[in-house]
Amino acid sequence: MNTTVTATADVPGEAPVLDLTAWTCPAPLRDQPRVVMGHGGGGALSAELVQHVFAPAYGGDALAQLADSAVVSLGGARLAFSTDSYVVRPLFFPGGSIGDLAVNGTVNDLAMSGARAAYLSCGFILEEGVELSVVARVADALGTAARRAGVEVATGDTKVVDAGHGDGIFINTAGIGLVPAGVDLRPQRVVPGDVVISSGAIGVHGVAIMSVREGLEFGVEIESDCAALGGLVETMLAVTPDLHVLRDPTRGGLAAALNEIAVASGTGVVIQERSVPVPPAVANACAVLGLDPMYVANEGKLVAFVPREHAEAVLEAMRAHPLGAEATVIGEAVEAHPGMVVARTGLGGTRVVDLPIGEQLPRIC
Amino acid sequence: MNTTVTATADVPGEAPVLDLTAWTCPAPLRDQPRVVMGHGGGGALSAELVQHVFAPAYGGDALAQLADSAVVSLGGARLAFSTDSYVVRPLFFPGGSIGDLAVNGTVNDLAMSGARAAYLSCGFILEEGVELSVVARVADALGTAARRAGVEVATGDTKVVDAGHGDGIFINTAGIGLVPAGVDLRPQRVVPGDVVISSGAIGVHGVAIMSVREGLEFGVEIESDCAALGGLVETMLAVTPDLHVLRDPTRGGLAAALNEIAVASGTGVVIQERSVPVPPAVANACAVLGLDPMYVANEGKLVAFVPREHAEAVLEAMRAHPLGAEATVIGEAVEAHPGMVVARTGLGGTRVVDLPIGEQLPRIC
Repeated sequence: MNTTVTATADVPGEAPVLDLTAWTCPAPLRDQPRVVMGHGGGGALSAELVQHVFAPAYGGDALAQLADSAVVSLGGARLAFSTDSYVVRPLFFPGGSIGDLAVNGTVNDLAMSGARAAYLSCGFILEEGVELSVVARVADALGTAARRAGVEVATGDTKVVDAGHGDGIFINTAGIGLVPAGVDLRPQRVVPGDVVISSGAIGVHGVAIMSVREGLEFGVEIESDCAALGGLVETMLAVTPDLHVLRDPTRGGLAAALNEIAVASGTGVVIQERSVPVPPAVANACAVLGLDPMYVANEGKLVAFVPREHAEAVLEAMRAHPLGAEATVIGEAVEAHPGMVVARTGLGGTRVVDLPIGEQLPRIC
Repeated sequence: MNTTVTATADVPGEAPVLDLTAWTCPAPLRDQPRVVMGHGGGGALSAELVQHVFAPAYGGDALAQLADSAVVSLGGARLAFSTDSYVVRPLFFPGGSIGDLAVNGTVNDLAMSGARAAYLSCGFILEEGVELSVVARVADALGTAARRAGVEVATGDTKVVDAGHGDGIFINTAGIGLVPAGVDLRPQRVVPGDVVISSGAIGVHGVAIMSVREGLEFGVEIESDCAALGGLVETMLAVTPDLHVLRDPTRGGLAAALNEIAVASGTGVVIQERSVPVPPAVANACAVLGLDPMYVANEGKLVAFVPREHAEAVLEAMRAHPLGAEATVIGEAVEAHPGMVVARTGLGGTRVVDLPIGEQLPRIC
């Protein structure tokens, strides 16, 4: 990536033409010269973009990007630091809004490092012409969600792009929080025998968005599970700081989260398909839409790899918390098939749960 | 802002219709029901958006947004925390790119709190169809700028929006850094008698962008002054930690920066117009374009309010630094006309330098 870029503006008002003839993208992106929706999908294409484009460009420990948040040292403190941009459509949906997502998504990324979010930054990219009243409603939802999560919006920025060059409202939030002493949540700490716990039912957020966006009705309104998980994680860490890894299965769903952990830890993961809680309304909607709930995004759930000796106590503590009332064991880490996730089906068979390539549901968060 | 929002999706694929009939925007935004470019311009409209929409929604100390960065306490450390989104067009311009801006802009916001940037987060919003090679070149520029500024990209995120709903590449960066003990940079610390120092020539970045975007030629190519100011600020603080306020005059230019300081400090500011360094090429371009250099964005300059007893030593230290070689005194804080900035013109007259309303040069950063 050390070629020369010559920027010349041939046409007034046009962006300069880039001479990139000498540039070749490292495989496997080479076959794909342009960005596709899947590059934002949280699956294999997203991971390739980080591994082949961003990580080499940034150097250092930038591969930390592959985790939900980075843990850094500053002024003697261990901080979790994370960012997400939010481009969900529509802006308001059953159970939440882009403002709720912008808080809870980033708060949850910090929680997955064991940190209680302390401060958020908040950058709006507005499209010229969007109603100020809509901006205000989104800001209101964001502020309310922040107060509920106990995090302060400390700094912000607003940019406006010309009509037709944005899409109403995009939001970026970044967050910082303290990682408690003794807490070290990383997929590399997973060992065979670890118990895999889900904090509740999966697939709800993605289906809620799709139903409103596509005007579908499934008899029951499905509300997003969007919620801030900092309190639940505190409850779990109070049982033992020795949890191995936490992940909130957002884009790419439970399947992507488990695959990332399996690959990074070098262990296998076995899921009991019948144990994975999928609400009937979500199962029905997925059947109609041709989706697999394992790949649908969640915004208020987490999956935990817990040492076997602590599993029962952690599960009990989770169930005593409103956001973990339906927590359940869904599988375990195993020595067999390292780096791979398999599901034991209800009929006794076994199937591989692959990392999704791209985007099953675009612009879900 | 406590009205009810009812979201209903009448048309498949359309965003839900918001019932906002009961919502009224507090004056003075009331006259303007939709977002205009000026709301992102760093002038009066931007300030109103923060004061009337964001600050009431977020509560707490969110008015810290009006500063370049917030100073927060975490784990016993004083941290500067800041965010900016970057939507500049074109992506590459003489002297820099959106990748350089995304690093230097946020690093500089932290530097204005006296902090050396330690870690950045980096969120890309990509438009479907943008060339991966362009993404890679931007990431490369961003990584190079980060290494030059001595800051680590610690965490990131990538979202993709459908073609026609974005504009190639938008970037958000947030940054954190330590504020050294004894440093307390706030406009409220400005007192009459403070000396106003500019670190160099103004108006360069904005004119560089405009010239390439509009295909204008002014005889000499004008290169953006985009640079990271952390080192220069360290040099200044080594003379005395008792600087009163620093500001990098980006959107809205020197005029906006001085007005914000005058209003927040309740002092008057007098500028000697002939002392404000404007390169001839910038002056010529501004004459042709009908722009006032005082309102044109800079990306590698700062303005400092320094106690009179330290001014000479600080100026000397600045001039010994490559990014402050042309540092010069441009005015002073005064008791007269509190909250107002006036310029003594070359002919001996006086003019008021107002806060700009909106956007003189859209999408400049």
